[in-house]
Amino acid sequence: MGNEPIAQGSRLKNMPDGHDKIFSQFREHSVAEFFKKNKQMLGFSGKVRSLTTIVHELVTNSLDACEEAGILPEVKVQVKEIEEDHYLVRVEDNGPGIPKTHLGKALGQMLAGTKFHRYIQQRGQQGIGAAGCTMYALLTTGQHPHAISYYKDKKISCEISIDFKTNRAEFINLLEEENKDGKSGLVYQAEFKDVRYEKSNYGVYEYLRRTALANPHAQIVLTEPNNESITFPRAVGENPKRPKEVQPHPLGISAHDLLDLAKAQKENRKISAFLQNALARVSANKVSELRDITPTVNFDKNPGEITWEEAEQIVQAFKKVKWIAPETDSIVPIGKEQIEKSFMNIFSPEVLAVTERSPKVYRGGVPFMVEAAIAYGGGIATAGKKGEIMRFANRVPLPFDAGGCALTESVKSIEWGRYNLKDFEEEPIVVLVNLVSVHVPYTGAGKQAVAQEEDVMDEIKNAVMEAAREVQRYISGKKKAHEIETKRKVISRYIDQLSSDLSDLASMKNKNELKKKLEKIIEEKYTKGGEGEDEKEEVPEHEEERIKEEDEGE
Amino acid sequence: MGNEPIAQGSRLKNMPDGHDKIFSQFREHSVAEFFKKNKQMLGFSGKVRSLTTIVHELVTNSLDACEEAGILPEVKVQVKEIEEDHYLVRVEDNGPGIPKTHLGKALGQMLAGTKFHRYIQQRGQQGIGAAGCTMYALLTTGQHPHAISYYKDKKISCEISIDFKTNRAEFINLLEEENKDGKSGLVYQAEFKDVRYEKSNYGVYEYLRRTALANPHAQIVLTEPNNESITFPRAVGENPKRPKEVQPHPLGISAHDLLDLAKAQKENRKISAFLQNALARVSANKVSELRDITPTVNFDKNPGEITWEEAEQIVQAFKKVKWIAPETDSIVPIGKEQIEKSFMNIFSPEVLAVTERSPKVYRGGVPFMVEAAIAYGGGIATAGKKGEIMRFANRVPLPFDAGGCALTESVKSIEWGRYNLKDFEEEPIVVLVNLVSVHVPYTGAGKQAVAQEEDVMDEIKNAVMEAAREVQRYISGKKKAHEIETKRKVISRYIDQLSSDLSDLASMKNKNELKKKLEKIIEEKYTKGGEGEDEKEEVPEHEEERIKEEDEGE
Repeated sequence: MGNEPIAQGSRLKNMPDGHDKIFSQFREHSVAEFFKKNKQMLGFSGKVRSLTTIVHELVTNSLDACEEAGILPEVKVQVKEIEEDHYLVRVEDNGPGIPKTHLGKALGQMLAGTKFHRYIQQRGQQGIGAAGCTMYALLTTGQHPHAISYYKDKKISCEISIDFKTNRAEFINLLEEENKDGKSGLVYQAEFKDVRYEKSNYGVYEYLRRTALANPHAQIVLTEPNNESITFPRAVGENPKRPKEVQPHPLGISAHDLLDLAKAQKENRKISAFLQNALARVSANKVSELRDITPTVNFDKNPGEITWEEAEQIVQAFKKVKWIAPETDSIVPIGKEQIEKSFMNIFSPEVLAVTERSPKVYRGGVPFMVEAAIAYGGGIATAGKKGEIMRFANRVPLPFDAGGCALTESVKSIEWGRYNLKDFEEEPIVVLVNLVSVHVPYTGAGKQAVAQEEDVMDEIKNAVMEAAREVQRYISGKKKAHEIETKRKVISRYIDQLSSDLSDLASMKNKNELKKKLEKIIEEKYTKGGEGEDEKEEVPEHEEERIKEEDEGE
Repeated sequence: MGNEPIAQGSRLKNMPDGHDKIFSQFREHSVAEFFKKNKQMLGFSGKVRSLTTIVHELVTNSLDACEEAGILPEVKVQVKEIEEDHYLVRVEDNGPGIPKTHLGKALGQMLAGTKFHRYIQQRGQQGIGAAGCTMYALLTTGQHPHAISYYKDKKISCEISIDFKTNRAEFINLLEEENKDGKSGLVYQAEFKDVRYEKSNYGVYEYLRRTALANPHAQIVLTEPNNESITFPRAVGENPKRPKEVQPHPLGISAHDLLDLAKAQKENRKISAFLQNALARVSANKVSELRDITPTVNFDKNPGEITWEEAEQIVQAFKKVKWIAPETDSIVPIGKEQIEKSFMNIFSPEVLAVTERSPKVYRGGVPFMVEAAIAYGGGIATAGKKGEIMRFANRVPLPFDAGGCALTESVKSIEWGRYNLKDFEEEPIVVLVNLVSVHVPYTGAGKQAVAQEEDVMDEIKNAVMEAAREVQRYISGKKKAHEIETKRKVISRYIDQLSSDLSDLASMKNKNELKKKLEKIIEEKYTKGGEGEDEKEEVPEHEEERIKEEDEGE
């Protein structure tokens, strides 16, 4: 290819050779090829992180499957070292299993599954995770992952491969038998290289510990490479309430979404009926309001005939109508009581404050909710934890990519000095944030960091600040008690001298009696104060108001 | 669906209803549907960022196309406001254009293009960008982007749509004419909503300014919404040297890669020949060495018959052989001289230090190189810039997702105090880092942050520290000059008195003569020192060594 520069508008005869050559290089690629080349986008970067990513994807699927089927989850995770940086991972659950027709796609095809298109709170939401694990096993060991699915009356065993060119899963040694034991569930087992087991904050152990913390209804058993088994026991005997699959809220959809919905549906012959059936909170009355706002749109015509302009007009009209907020039963938090139980179990902190806020919406109509907890002192101090932020989304721990994540940034943006926690990074404190939503806006396919949506960040700040105030009250009380105790000690030290001097002055005979009286006075005064009856005053009235205002203003 | 929990191993008759219902929800999705739902992963989040992302993707493609064809790039960008948050964007280049057969795929199909699979330094490397813009136009306005391609003797005009379900591009109103003007190039024009033009660090203007800075061979003209045109003129009259498309280095490939290469090739009948032809730096001698290390592998058999185990053995053997580093002509930096020119043009700083380091490899064998520049004071101070880090990868500005990016983290991890720049964030300083590689390990499909590969980070740190030392020498000299000047002034102030007193004491007649002599002495002494002849001493010998050691150790 020539290197001669050509100015704009130059004649064709000057065109250098090689253009056809460029386009002979034109190729189409599958999403499997894309992620094969960009493994890091799925969380496969670094040995420790890669292993945690594998366990994360598989356990996440297990929990989702169990809960969807109404089964109390029991998940067994085994990590076995074969040689250095080469491990076997086995995850077994008691979920419903997967039928043969879907088994390959669920475990070996990217962007396939039950989750991506549904408007429901779930851990997974992409349909990539398990196929990503299969990919990583193939890329690093050339060994096919092995799966056993106990689904209804069938036991299906197979090995799974991926045709990267077409993003299709392939079965090897498929065996379909009668499900004699009557078990249900899925077993996934594979070998991986370029992974490492490590007991750090980023390793599998800590990941499962946090999973247990946020999922007290699940029983999780981890068998470590040293063959020791650790059980994170079930703390709550029933599954959380099932989040309801909701319809999109009018304030959360675009013109394009509306047209998609209209094209996909067949039941409704009129736009008016379609809107009421396809969207949340749209009643006949609301349709009348919409008709009034957009007189040029004929709400009696077939939804399939909506034009882009009409869809835009309808979406514009949505913004002018007063709507009831999305249904809150689409959002199921861990729950205040459960978080308290889990935290006391795991950390036994000196003080614990948990906030649960009511559901809100972001981007106009996507329901979400924030839970926050702050644990301070006690077991936190003993464990040497300082200024730690534990991030969760839909109960899934997010140990990686803290920088730039909306959860981290929100917590860090708080003026901790206001809560007597100026040196946040040096205090014995753990902050938990759980973001619950029908669609968590992750920044990448690796699902570790949450995009910095303003509504979400404000809500996180408010939730954490609410918990911080509770902790502050405790710390202030403690500080005051400490000051009082110091004063008491100083004064007590002088009692001996004082009682002796006073006795002399007053020519009293019983020095000891006076001493006892003085001691009693001091004890009463400072013990009463020390109990902190007036600790509420520690936050000046105007300060409380200032905080409140900011909460609402933010 | 029942909510009754079921323990593991429970009998099937207790299985709650609804399992079939779950799997009736099973779907397969296209990559276009995936990114439609996760626009933020492509950089479409926030109005200002979305507009910059559009310009970024289109201009990046234009520059790549021009350079590949050996054409000096002239890119015209027009941004026109239609109404609030609704803009028209038009990008026109003088590249080779795109033939009809590839036009739709290039502009409307994700994961299609000439870049993804090639081992060559390019700006784009995913084959998503332009299709992402088309997607965003369709999603926000329902309008089809319009394209005109002047390719050889054809002028092709069309509108482009995307079938999201299948990730296929569709032509509308396709018109193929004779290319009467003999022009070459591509025009892409589309309307977007949910975007905003803003003259911040994150806006289109600053993006193009930085693009011009890193591409002094390109002429870029921006027409802003107020209809004013700004030309970023070409500063260098020829294209940079074309980076060579290289073969993978033995140290940079996995067993899976080796099998893929072996399967894809047909020319070579023996493994020995295949290795020499498919990989860089493999000679007949090296094959002999490999044979000695892996006696169980038959290097004379057909490459198509390599087993996984053999591929692993060969890759293991690669690690035991001494290899020459990858060819450096696969890597083309901006160049020290060009960076100096650009920086002086744009900022006219008081001091400028540019470092260009030699190419290295990461992950064992992927070639890369780091350029760094530090501009201090002068125009930087005037512009009010403080502690700014300008990130580039393959000459492409990366204005977003600074948190967690290897470039930012490396620069921030430097102990700036050592270079008299303790308050880095408050100093009038701009640090430029350009990472050049045949494969930039981006953390996401939005290509804004670089994954924290250790080798890459070390190299960035070293490059920036090298520049920092040069700046430090200047700052130290300046500081010393300032001290000397102060001393001189203080002493000069006493000359009058001194010469008068001395004259009296010595009973000299000509007071003025003495004064002049004294002045001359002072002037000579302090001017000489002030020129900084001995400024090298400012960095104590042992300190220099310490820095050097750390450079090498890191």
